[in-house]
Amino acid sequence: MSENILQDLEMVTCTAPVNIAVIKYWGKRDEDLILPVNASLSVTLHQDHLRTTTTIACSRSFHKDCIWLNGKEQDISHPRLQSCLLEIRRLAQRRKNTGDPASDVSNKVHICSVNNFPTAAGLASSAAGYACLVYTLSQLFNVEGELSGVARQGSGSACRSLYGGFVQWKLGEQSDGKDSIAEQVASELYWPELRVLILVVSAEQKSVGSTSGMHTSVETSHLLKYRADAVVPGRMEEMIRAIRLRDFPKFGELTMKDSNQFHAICLDTYPPIFYLNNISHQIISLVHRYNQYYGETRVAYTFDAGPNAVIYSLQDYLPEFVEVVRHFFPPEVNEEEFFKGLPVCPADLSEEMIRDINMKPTPNGIRYMISTKAGPGPRVVEDPNLHLLGADGLPKKSAV
Amino acid sequence: MSENILQDLEMVTCTAPVNIAVIKYWGKRDEDLILPVNASLSVTLHQDHLRTTTTIACSRSFHKDCIWLNGKEQDISHPRLQSCLLEIRRLAQRRKNTGDPASDVSNKVHICSVNNFPTAAGLASSAAGYACLVYTLSQLFNVEGELSGVARQGSGSACRSLYGGFVQWKLGEQSDGKDSIAEQVASELYWPELRVLILVVSAEQKSVGSTSGMHTSVETSHLLKYRADAVVPGRMEEMIRAIRLRDFPKFGELTMKDSNQFHAICLDTYPPIFYLNNISHQIISLVHRYNQYYGETRVAYTFDAGPNAVIYSLQDYLPEFVEVVRHFFPPEVNEEEFFKGLPVCPADLSEEMIRDINMKPTPNGIRYMISTKAGPGPRVVEDPNLHLLGADGLPKKSAV
Repeated sequence: MSENILQDLEMVTCTAPVNIAVIKYWGKRDEDLILPVNASLSVTLHQDHLRTTTTIACSRSFHKDCIWLNGKEQDISHPRLQSCLLEIRRLAQRRKNTGDPASDVSNKVHICSVNNFPTAAGLASSAAGYACLVYTLSQLFNVEGELSGVARQGSGSACRSLYGGFVQWKLGEQSDGKDSIAEQVASELYWPELRVLILVVSAEQKSVGSTSGMHTSVETSHLLKYRADAVVPGRMEEMIRAIRLRDFPKFGELTMKDSNQFHAICLDTYPPIFYLNNISHQIISLVHRYNQYYGETRVAYTFDAGPNAVIYSLQDYLPEFVEVVRHFFPPEVNEEEFFKGLPVCPADLSEEMIRDINMKPTPNGIRYMISTKAGPGPRVVEDPNLHLLGADGLPKKSAV
Repeated sequence: MSENILQDLEMVTCTAPVNIAVIKYWGKRDEDLILPVNASLSVTLHQDHLRTTTTIACSRSFHKDCIWLNGKEQDISHPRLQSCLLEIRRLAQRRKNTGDPASDVSNKVHICSVNNFPTAAGLASSAAGYACLVYTLSQLFNVEGELSGVARQGSGSACRSLYGGFVQWKLGEQSDGKDSIAEQVASELYWPELRVLILVVSAEQKSVGSTSGMHTSVETSHLLKYRADAVVPGRMEEMIRAIRLRDFPKFGELTMKDSNQFHAICLDTYPPIFYLNNISHQIISLVHRYNQYYGETRVAYTFDAGPNAVIYSLQDYLPEFVEVVRHFFPPEVNEEEFFKGLPVCPADLSEEMIRDINMKPTPNGIRYMISTKAGPGPRVVEDPNLHLLGADGLPKKSAV
């Protein structure tokens, strides 16, 4: 136990999910407000498998705002962190001062945040991170209303992590960004058969960060503006329709086409940006050959700003595809290290299919996979034992 | 000596060059006439290092048209071969019949063609091949006038190999394709300092052929039409200006941007097409880092439908860049196997530059390089000893 127990300490812990876009966000029309050049749409992943947990404490005895990420203290002056803190405090000022430390927004906060997945997985951790920050702050300061516009100012795609299921980030028209917010298209319960499989690829090179990458794309790619103006609006409509109809072939085809177009824009950037490596290319080939074998789209890939694939499929198709991946990327680690998340039934592969796919297996090309599905938005953690900060307002040893 | 010497045998041997586009051709608006969706521009490479040689013989005693490519008899009924033969014979009918076998176009021909570079090099051999076929036929049948429209019907980019130096393939407007022909922008003597370095990459996978690839792109890529209509016309003008001004930084930057955009279109194709592999990506990074070190564009890359790079640079810059390539892709073969073509002076590398480029060397990533420059168009070979067909009208053993 710490010797320095703060009597006025108020503390809230929340979790928030990762989301994976099926219509990609790439390019800002306003760098400060983080307003996109096109609308986007994502699936919120289940927090059982991928989540950020954030505890925020408030006390009159804190001298300054502090933040610890994955056990390491970070610079709180980061402009995007400041944007979120400032915006929530602004919204909180509208409330009545009840005398609690959190009802006075001039009191300082301690923020402690951890991901339950390795950063190396290259899974947009900033989306879950900023969504969790903003949601937890709103709980602490008792702020109500639309939070996605606040999270957006931390990290664009974070706005989509404030809702569960299928979420669009609307382009908006206003110059102050007030209408560039997230909106749920369908809940996580709407399409229960949908499954998600993350293939974490062995990467050799470090990639260009998405913030600087999309900045260069906006500056240099002739094709980006055309994509934003002429292609994405139609795709958003088609995608929303496919989700409402639970039309997997259409959903999958649009997802793959939009992933490919996003990476095409990266290549059209000067100097060009490459996120896909040879293993990514092989996964793409494998998916197309697998679908071709069945004459329909049963699995679909999408790639963010890195070489890892996210596969969308249906419950009935996933077990076989997991075996297909295992066959063409034979793991060199044990099963527990290789397969994580929602269990899938074992499946047999037909020799005819393996012959038909006709690819040379690449041992160890995929480091591990995480099986999951769509899930809900941010949640408050009720159990006080799960707070990441102790009674002294400092990170518990277990959170470091 | 063959026992079957044909008394009426007429024979011509010619050579034709390879060309490498700096504004890329990708997509046909007419598949039969091979009319492109956009204009393109290339540099004709010197035949000292890369060329096709073709001998065509004509005799009343030939029963049918025959063709041998690199020593193997091929199917003469191939539609594109037939297009070229038919078109040249049509043009030849206008001439007077002098009694020679070649003055009667109903006489059959034997065609024998070899490349002096391995097909494995993935260097658009069809361009040099069809240019050589059409040029040699025109010499045999004494056909004069614009031949690039005929070669275009064999292989689109072949039309550009009928001229030396810097050559544009004009888009044209007529539906019969009569104005979609090649035109010299500047001769091979206009910019003598320009150098070309071909980096032959170790490829693992076989690529999608360019004919079927561009067909799928036209059918599926939203971005292709925009590129053709809105981007290429301006780039053609800029490129022609850069060549006339011998402005290497501008020439190089446009070349790289257009290569990247072509590969972006391939990625936007469904299913996507990948021609660049990890080594190609590394070459692209190396070029950008090298140029950044000097704060100017001293070398430029371009990639066709495969992973091999073609580097454009200037005489003064090339020796150092050759050493840079050798440093970051250390060869595991001897010098003779690794470096072919125009010799370059040895150069020292500064440690500061190597540090600044900051890439991990990839041993054996590049199999070999060919150093060359711009060169002239097709030529007649005068020495009868160099004919690929013997007095019997059949391939000499040396041509097999």
